[in-house]
Amino acid sequence: MNKEFLYHEIAAGIANQITSGVLKNGERLPSVRKLCKDHRVSMNTAKRVFLELEAQSLIDSKPQSGYFVSQRPSFRLPLPEVSRPLLIAYDNEPDELISKVYTDMGNEELTLFSISAPSGDLLPLAKLKKEIIQATTALKEGGTGYEHLQGNVKLRRMIAVRSLGWGGDLHEDELVTTNGAMNAVSLCLMTVGKPGDTIAMESPCYPGTLQLAISLGFKVLELPTHPTTGLEIAALKEAIPKINICLLVPNFNTPLGSCMPDEHKKEIVELLASHHIPLIEDDIYGDLYFGAQRPKCCKSFDKEGNVLWCSSVSKTLAPGYRVGWVAPGKYKEQLLKIKLIHSISSVSIIQESVANFLKTGRYENHLRQLRRTLQDNYQNYVQTIGEYFPEGTKTSRPQGGLALWVEFNKRIDTRKLYDLAIKQRISIAPGRMFTLQDQFQNCMRLCIGLPWSVEIKQKLKQLGNLAKSIASASV
Amino acid sequence: MNKEFLYHEIAAGIANQITSGVLKNGERLPSVRKLCKDHRVSMNTAKRVFLELEAQSLIDSKPQSGYFVSQRPSFRLPLPEVSRPLLIAYDNEPDELISKVYTDMGNEELTLFSISAPSGDLLPLAKLKKEIIQATTALKEGGTGYEHLQGNVKLRRMIAVRSLGWGGDLHEDELVTTNGAMNAVSLCLMTVGKPGDTIAMESPCYPGTLQLAISLGFKVLELPTHPTTGLEIAALKEAIPKINICLLVPNFNTPLGSCMPDEHKKEIVELLASHHIPLIEDDIYGDLYFGAQRPKCCKSFDKEGNVLWCSSVSKTLAPGYRVGWVAPGKYKEQLLKIKLIHSISSVSIIQESVANFLKTGRYENHLRQLRRTLQDNYQNYVQTIGEYFPEGTKTSRPQGGLALWVEFNKRIDTRKLYDLAIKQRISIAPGRMFTLQDQFQNCMRLCIGLPWSVEIKQKLKQLGNLAKSIASASV
Repeated sequence: MNKEFLYHEIAAGIANQITSGVLKNGERLPSVRKLCKDHRVSMNTAKRVFLELEAQSLIDSKPQSGYFVSQRPSFRLPLPEVSRPLLIAYDNEPDELISKVYTDMGNEELTLFSISAPSGDLLPLAKLKKEIIQATTALKEGGTGYEHLQGNVKLRRMIAVRSLGWGGDLHEDELVTTNGAMNAVSLCLMTVGKPGDTIAMESPCYPGTLQLAISLGFKVLELPTHPTTGLEIAALKEAIPKINICLLVPNFNTPLGSCMPDEHKKEIVELLASHHIPLIEDDIYGDLYFGAQRPKCCKSFDKEGNVLWCSSVSKTLAPGYRVGWVAPGKYKEQLLKIKLIHSISSVSIIQESVANFLKTGRYENHLRQLRRTLQDNYQNYVQTIGEYFPEGTKTSRPQGGLALWVEFNKRIDTRKLYDLAIKQRISIAPGRMFTLQDQFQNCMRLCIGLPWSVEIKQKLKQLGNLAKSIASASV
Repeated sequence: MNKEFLYHEIAAGIANQITSGVLKNGERLPSVRKLCKDHRVSMNTAKRVFLELEAQSLIDSKPQSGYFVSQRPSFRLPLPEVSRPLLIAYDNEPDELISKVYTDMGNEELTLFSISAPSGDLLPLAKLKKEIIQATTALKEGGTGYEHLQGNVKLRRMIAVRSLGWGGDLHEDELVTTNGAMNAVSLCLMTVGKPGDTIAMESPCYPGTLQLAISLGFKVLELPTHPTTGLEIAALKEAIPKINICLLVPNFNTPLGSCMPDEHKKEIVELLASHHIPLIEDDIYGDLYFGAQRPKCCKSFDKEGNVLWCSSVSKTLAPGYRVGWVAPGKYKEQLLKIKLIHSISSVSIIQESVANFLKTGRYENHLRQLRRTLQDNYQNYVQTIGEYFPEGTKTSRPQGGLALWVEFNKRIDTRKLYDLAIKQRISIAPGRMFTLQDQFQNCMRLCIGLPWSVEIKQKLKQLGNLAKSIASASV
């Protein structure tokens, strides 16, 4: 039996026992060793079963004692279906909706469920401030000079060190800093592509990437995507002859929060390399895993330098700092040239501050806390949605990241919901933003990066009521 | 008689009297009123004569007393000819030289005559540091959040206020902040152009713009340019049917340091508007005038919103801050969309700091001092070049900015000079970088933004000796 399938099956079995109440809250689970024996699987497969269940918030690990059914009942709503976009490359202008929703960004009067970013309340503001002051003092000429084109070497070194955690084994010289991850992706696309090329992406996918691709004159081929395991490999295989570039967010992508299994990553990297199709990997959410371990990246399996791995601290530390980077593999020299052309260099002070922050253990502490908060938020959101949203509402089951994907029944158009909600000072991201095609009209993305509170719960309730009013008006 | 011609003629007459010794150092010049009477010209024309002479460092103004022949003899070398590029649109890859020279950027072991930026020694480092600390404290959430897409409103307001000084009369809402001026120009090109378009530029021109244009799939038409008055209007008129966009640096452009007379600016703005050709104006050096008054911009004459005015603080305050902006006229909405796509937002902390610095009088004080230093540097450079460089060396007469253009006789190839100089830890910018065509091989640009010292003089002497060695080897 396929390994992949096997561990999913075992995990699903245990999950079922938990949700049906056969296994009680707080009850101890069998050991990894016992699971191996019972199911005749390898240690690795057994471990993955537990990681999977932990990622779903169904179990907790206790050091030295093993795994236990989560004390907190994990509330779940039905999962949306695998997306089924038309397998045609589109190059039409993205929906106007994107610009409309993004102008809400930075508007302090709104509850911004629409923007995928952690709230400032969840960030280590005082420590970051200290780093900025120190960097301004420590840098030659106060950081006013042009920085080296490749970017702050301390920052690159810290990113390289951290890459060991996901099997990246990068060297500082393989990295180039950028003004945030979007800038990294933009530089990558200009490096490996040319107008007229077709890019394969997940569907639904991040609206900014759609806009970027179209503005650079590319066509976009959206591919079927599973709400928990991400891009469907079979569809990618079929699409190979039609595509020039592949752009994926394998770890906790927005809006689905899906996480591609390592086996899939490996297979995709090999498939694309064998066809000389560059893979741009956007890994901005990789550090925000809900499970026990950070997932690997496609870059972890890259032997040919064919993967351009992009990330940033925008989703974990400070969206407004615009500190990102890319490990462009064999495309480094070309990408450096493009960076020089479009922005000359990055902001020294901010890069130095982030480098110093990463150097201490504080970043790990902060991430641990942030992950726990996001996971709790996810549970609170889903429970509230179950309580107040129209019957039949489905949600994704993110295994990390900042996004929750909500699917209403077909009668509820989320563009209409946006218009109603904004009047109540609530901003959401309607599903139509996440595609160039006519799909996801009944979906929306909610950011779970806002600190949970009575007010947030109230705003979700309001959203639910508005959705119900649309549903009943259209009967 | 044409006004333009008239004031040039009167100024040239007085200049001649000064350089030939008829008017002695320190001698008082006739008053503005007397000049009006003698030459039967308007007050405005008479004033412009004095401004012109002051810009050429030939005379000084003393408050309440009038104008005097400069105490310091203005040393001059012959002026290079008007450039004569082939009037064919090129889309070949820019010379490899550009990348080679730019990798020297940030290398602390080199004397960087090659990079057009003020040395940190000439910048108000302590005050800037203070502003950064204050901004980090004052900003909501320490500036970690995404900034509003259009950029920091205080910064935009200050730029608008300052625009009154050059007849811009901008409103904060007409401005968009960017990551430096190159990023502004890049956004402008993506906003108004499409691959295959032809852009008219000055020749020689800034290498980064050439790279940018080619990388975006444009063709470049280089136009004849006068070393002191800039772009030749007749050539632009002839080129109109062939071009889609015009990109100029009218004030103290690099590498020539020329300044386009206001009449030319007005004429060009009207000409381009009547043919619906957008004008991207890069005004990064505008505040670095050596004369008495800041020159106007093309934007000052823009009635149709057809001029996209770009600038930054990279040449005046802090290259490494990457704070720039654009007033995109009627293209604002499109440009905002492009900004969102490629970089989402700018760095809040740095923008806030610069805004606060501009708000105080300190910026004006700093600029006054910086201008004086640059003007003195220019004199020192030219004198040293006259002393140590091969006979027949010509130099531009910048009326502002950071660049000095040096033209050797044809036997001296500055690419060879670069290779020899870099071994002595001196980096220069060979002329071939500033064109897509086969020209300027015997030219180079020197940055005059390094503080004058015995060492700098020594490095220039070394350069001169190397140039002589090339000349004699090729006889």
